[in-house]
Amino acid sequence: MSRQLPLLDQPPRERSDAARNREALLAAAARLVEEQGVDAVTMDSVATEAGVGKGTVFRRFDSREGLMGALLNRSETEWQALVISGPPPLGPGAPAIERLHAFGHSRMELNLTHAELIRAAGRAGSRSYSAVSFAAMHMRYLLSELGVRGDLHFLATALLAPLEMVVLVQQTRVDAIPLDSVKAGWDDLVRRVVCPEVNRPV
Amino acid sequence: MSRQLPLLDQPPRERSDAARNREALLAAAARLVEEQGVDAVTMDSVATEAGVGKGTVFRRFDSREGLMGALLNRSETEWQALVISGPPPLGPGAPAIERLHAFGHSRMELNLTHAELIRAAGRAGSRSYSAVSFAAMHMRYLLSELGVRGDLHFLATALLAPLEMVVLVQQTRVDAIPLDSVKAGWDDLVRRVVCPEVNRPV
Repeated sequence: MSRQLPLLDQPPRERSDAARNREALLAAAARLVEEQGVDAVTMDSVATEAGVGKGTVFRRFDSREGLMGALLNRSETEWQALVISGPPPLGPGAPAIERLHAFGHSRMELNLTHAELIRAAGRAGSRSYSAVSFAAMHMRYLLSELGVRGDLHFLATALLAPLEMVVLVQQTRVDAIPLDSVKAGWDDLVRRVVCPEVNRPV
Repeated sequence: MSRQLPLLDQPPRERSDAARNREALLAAAARLVEEQGVDAVTMDSVATEAGVGKGTVFRRFDSREGLMGALLNRSETEWQALVISGPPPLGPGAPAIERLHAFGHSRMELNLTHAELIRAAGRAGSRSYSAVSFAAMHMRYLLSELGVRGDLHFLATALLAPLEMVVLVQQTRVDAIPLDSVKAGWDDLVRRVVCPEVNRPV
């Protein structure tokens, strides 16, 4: 086999280096978001955190907006992976009702971070519908596991709607309601939706 | 009393004519929206419907966007007046549970029209927060009338969230779910929230 021709499952060395490089920069940016918030993420701070020159960050992402857009995609994908195969109670292995509560709480935290990333990303950032439909699909699955009867499509939409960024930002930032109160309110809503009395077989 | 000085409660004749003129144009535009939809509303069609020259419409609203913005405010204000003092079941006089269902259904219809008006209004149109807070206030009132216990602030937000324009447009336009199914789903959600079993006094 010729050493000059890369195998199909072995990307050319340069491309694979670029991908690793990009991932290292995004991981550094994600650490900064987690530790210091979205505002702390600049092309400079990411370069320092990743131990590379600022020029490298610009070569990979063009602008802070571009970096924020890439960070947004990575964050959503990582979260979906945690829901599908991460540790319980968000991932599989816990009772469905515990998974449902964990799912709502972690979606709230994710959406609040994403609201800031989208603001910082400007035109580069918009939530893809696949993100919303993944969440709705998972919600329908958990509701059916819990024996909830009715229009599960609508009920999933209704349970996700108060977690939407615009509603959550209004509650926590504008109305200054503590996130823990919003979580408790949502837990109570879940309790009402899964309440056995309203889900008795007919 | 001098005839030259207008009384405080009698606006100058020219201003009052202008206001009447403006209201006649908005009423004509609202009829067009109701009968033929938002796309049918142009500066021309409003002029024809109101029986005035096109120049008059431009003088009052500058642009189609400006007209749409004014229409949006008028529509929200009219709807609030119907909720506060219009005929039942939306207005007072019907049992609270009937008012709640009527409120949700009419809010859905209003928001779907408003979504189109906002799109057509471009920068001139954005929903004021007072619109959202009026709806939340009324929802809390109806929930407390129904003996619902718990965090009424959050429950009101949660019942309004699936009626938000972005969620409703996704359901009816993108997912092509008939509005009647969305209404039925929402009615079921209301039933779960007001369910006596989850609202028993402790």
